[in-house]
Amino acid sequence: MPSAHAPSTRFDVLTIGNAIVDVIARTDDDFLVAQSLVKGSMRLIDPEEAERLYGLMNSTIEMSGGCAGNTAAGVASFGQRVAFIGKVADDHLGRVFRHDIRAIGVEFNTDALLEGTPTARSMILVTPDGERTMNTYLGACQHLTAADIDADMIAAAKIIYLEGYLWDPPAAKHAFRRAADIAHAAGRRVAITLSDSFCVDRFRDEFLDLLRTGTVDIVFANEAEAKSLYQTADFDSAVAGLRADAKLSAITLGSRGALVVTREETHHVPVSPVDNFVDTTGAGDLFAAGFLAGLSRDESLTNCAVLGGIAAGEIITHYGARPQASLQDLARQNGFEF
Amino acid sequence: MPSAHAPSTRFDVLTIGNAIVDVIARTDDDFLVAQSLVKGSMRLIDPEEAERLYGLMNSTIEMSGGCAGNTAAGVASFGQRVAFIGKVADDHLGRVFRHDIRAIGVEFNTDALLEGTPTARSMILVTPDGERTMNTYLGACQHLTAADIDADMIAAAKIIYLEGYLWDPPAAKHAFRRAADIAHAAGRRVAITLSDSFCVDRFRDEFLDLLRTGTVDIVFANEAEAKSLYQTADFDSAVAGLRADAKLSAITLGSRGALVVTREETHHVPVSPVDNFVDTTGAGDLFAAGFLAGLSRDESLTNCAVLGGIAAGEIITHYGARPQASLQDLARQNGFEF
Repeated sequence: MPSAHAPSTRFDVLTIGNAIVDVIARTDDDFLVAQSLVKGSMRLIDPEEAERLYGLMNSTIEMSGGCAGNTAAGVASFGQRVAFIGKVADDHLGRVFRHDIRAIGVEFNTDALLEGTPTARSMILVTPDGERTMNTYLGACQHLTAADIDADMIAAAKIIYLEGYLWDPPAAKHAFRRAADIAHAAGRRVAITLSDSFCVDRFRDEFLDLLRTGTVDIVFANEAEAKSLYQTADFDSAVAGLRADAKLSAITLGSRGALVVTREETHHVPVSPVDNFVDTTGAGDLFAAGFLAGLSRDESLTNCAVLGGIAAGEIITHYGARPQASLQDLARQNGFEF
Repeated sequence: MPSAHAPSTRFDVLTIGNAIVDVIARTDDDFLVAQSLVKGSMRLIDPEEAERLYGLMNSTIEMSGGCAGNTAAGVASFGQRVAFIGKVADDHLGRVFRHDIRAIGVEFNTDALLEGTPTARSMILVTPDGERTMNTYLGACQHLTAADIDADMIAAAKIIYLEGYLWDPPAAKHAFRRAADIAHAAGRRVAITLSDSFCVDRFRDEFLDLLRTGTVDIVFANEAEAKSLYQTADFDSAVAGLRADAKLSAITLGSRGALVVTREETHHVPVSPVDNFVDTTGAGDLFAAGFLAGLSRDESLTNCAVLGGIAAGEIITHYGARPQASLQDLARQNGFEF
């Protein structure tokens, strides 16, 4: 990896993704069944469906979300230098998103969309088992284009991290590819999260192409996403596929921890059990945050996964996907010198 | 009390108050000191100060709040029939407030303010000790008038509950008095919460007049508010004052439970300790919810206070002042037949 020889950086991590405010409500399994919703998945909805579903939802909590936004907030909470690129509108939720991500110390300067489409929102239904089912109206995210990619910022980040969900809004994949090109030209590393098994299903060939062409160096996935990528029911086959196609993979295994896979090695890293878990929203995003924070500090891969587990363990104890405790403090309490 | 002989009711409780969305952020004591904020208080701010303070706040959670709105949501969560009257604007936060209070089963039909002033918001700073410090921009609440008081709804409620904060927006006190007159004419009971010791300081004479003229039958207060009402540092003197001036008082004592005071009796009702308390926002509002739910079901005064403690105990375990668990279920788990 060339980063040690590259010019100095302004950011440890820069993330690019859909800028979304979460609208969170508790529900029960009967409601999911009645609405034909697939538990644990993310589906895209239009404004009419968003309005209809909102009318049926329990009272809500609104807070900033979005996978890459959550990851940026998590890395910042570890005390690292972070930037985010994503598209909000010039409306209430857009101002909330911008306020919140800046408040935690993330640099976020992407111009807001000035008229028309509103800021994206994801209506997240949380069942008593803590599982979340997401219904996302992409709104202004559909207007993120390659023109929003600030080349200087990208080149100044040790690692850039992009979400697979960027394949959903049609123009954003060009932004993704442009960012990856700039990063590699500057000697930086590029990471992707596969985001969601249904998202993998929509864009499998393109995601495999990103890995196999070296457009992406590091891949984050959970078990379902890894299996979906290789269309296999056998986890070991999926791991073998990732080992062949990516330089580094971090695969989350829920309460069983994570698997870190390189061409040469495989590490299984367990996590401490969490007693009072409430809402799994953001668990994967925060695992990535801890892992990236560790990578940017040249921690061992095992330690990176431990940091991922610490961050994910914090996020599932409350509603919402942005940390409520200082992850830097939690890392210190676990023996890290941050 | 004449309610047993009055015509049948459509609501167990109807509450009237400032319709507010809470904007909640964690902070530390240093921030409160630097901003000259009085911990535990509510202060009124103008839009410019709201903007300035928001710019300095940590990332936020937005959820519906407002004292009387929280109390209405709590009574509904106990499975009782509830209505709310309050003024929102026709904007994003106004739609959120209306959605949330209806979603929990509260009837809310007050017309939205169509242009100009936005929906009220309270920026709530929560310190590590769980105490909340509120900074409220009243916005559309300033346009609640006597014309918003639906006489048929008021007359159809067993108990109406009004917040002392209604004295802050100039026109709302007329709405308050009109509602109390209608309720009494229909043989119903009228309750007030003193809301905040500084609010009592602003309107002491008027609040005492409400009690002494019998405009209000039942008063809710905490220790600081009771002492402020009678300008005494001696709690017993404040209790004696309330005993003389009100038919029924319920005084919350934080972790020591509550005192129920009538002309004839005083009951001290302890509460179970809460391990994992996070945010005291809404504790008083939810105590009132449990107490009113009990009163409307003709429970003993002691049981009413126990129900208040159950509701307050739920609300302080999480951010935000609307219940996240079913209070009806919690009441049943505590032996109540709801």
